[in-house]
Amino acid sequence: MTALNNQDILSRVAETIESRKEASPDSSYVAKLFSKGPDAVLKKIGEEATEVVLAAKDQDKAHIVYEVADLWFHTMVLLAQHNLSPEDITKELARREGLSGLVEKAARKE
Amino acid sequence: MTALNNQDILSRVAETIESRKEASPDSSYVAKLFSKGPDAVLKKIGEEATEVVLAAKDQDKAHIVYEVADLWFHTMVLLAQHNLSPEDITKELARREGLSGLVEKAARKE
Amino acid sequence: MTALNNQDILSRVAETIESRKEASPDSSYVAKLFSKGPDAVLKKIGEEATEVVLAAKDQDKAHIVYEVADLWFHTMVLLAQHNLSPEDITKELARREGLSGLVEKAARKE
Amino acid sequence: MTALNNQDILSRVAETIESRKEASPDSSYVAKLFSKGPDAVLKKIGEEATEVVLAAKDQDKAHIVYEVADLWFHTMVLLAQHNLSPEDITKELARREGLSGLVEKAARKE
Repeated sequence: MTALNNQDILSRVAETIESRKEASPDSSYVAKLFSKGPDAVLKKIGEEATEVVLAAKDQDKAHIVYEVADLWFHTMVLLAQHNLSPEDITKELARREGLSGLVEKAARKE
Repeated sequence: MTALNNQDILSRVAETIESRKEASPDSSYVAKLFSKGPDAVLKKIGEEATEVVLAAKDQDKAHIVYEVADLWFHTMVLLAQHNLSPEDITKELARREGLSGLVEKAARKE
Repeated sequence: MTALNNQDILSRVAETIESRKEASPDSSYVAKLFSKGPDAVLKKIGEEATEVVLAAKDQDKAHIVYEVADLWFHTMVLLAQHNLSPEDITKELARREGLSGLVEKAARKE
Repeated sequence: MTALNNQDILSRVAETIESRKEASPDSSYVAKLFSKGPDAVLKKIGEEATEVVLAAKDQDKAHIVYEVADLWFHTMVLLAQHNLSPEDITKELARREGLSGLVEKAARKE
């Protein structure tokens, strides 16, 4: 068994979200969100960003973690709607960090 | 050489951000952001969330990737301000996914 | 009877909101919002701002009017929470427009 | 001379904004905002909503007034972009308040 590292968590969450795309709206929160059309998740992103701000102003670390997780989760639902993945985001972050070369080298090894 | 996965990249970005905490405001964008006090990054989170919404409404995939990367990046600056890390977020996401047990098993094997 | 001009509308809405401050949470939407504590209306302001953006991107004029009205309404609830009123906002706007002198003159006549 | 009430001030601000629509981008802040295209004001609305939240969390009344004025002002720029006016918003608020009948009666007397 491969150790389940944090990379696998983002990928697994993305897979779970992907699997909800065609599911019945009643079957899960994400399926319901998809069924409401593209604006529903954008409203959630606006909401969750505000909740991150509120948690941060309260200096409440557990709440910050909870709300940032909510925000990242809903951006991942948005990515899935556009057939994008967390890897697209981390690749962009790596590019900015000057890590692109390493990512590409690693990709060739996979 | 180890392949750079999502989490490796997030960890490296978090390290870079962390290293800017005590740096001169003139030395980098993040150092400047830290120097402006805690509200500056919260304003950026509000801005970037709106830019994600705009990019999504335009159905512009490259722009979505760019703006979600910006949003994640600024939430990571917020995490650093509160001595939190991307691992705290992926752990929370794992907990919600019901993967907590697997993560713990994997951790024991590492 | 004095003609009910638009000034009266903003003032009347503010009066209605004010009258809900001490009302039972079950008695109205605003009373319920007040009962939820100060963050509830801030979350609504974040939500409504996002909905304004969505309506504008859709070029949907009726929807823009609806969502801007929602946003102004919720900012008026916030003002009431802080014992402020729409007059505080229009005075500030007048000050920026260089209308302050006129507002003051008018106030002296009232 | 007529007293300047809320609506008079909003109307004057709306007139000023309207007059900037065709002005040179260098001539004023609003002219510059118009020249940047429709997304620029939407970004500002997202930003200003976040700043309202920050001011409210700080319990800073003067700052709340300042930021709500900014938010209302930028929504008025948006209204102008869509050939709408503050009257459209106050009419919608009146409709919700159940004041519509009174407004119509008053209008007939004017």
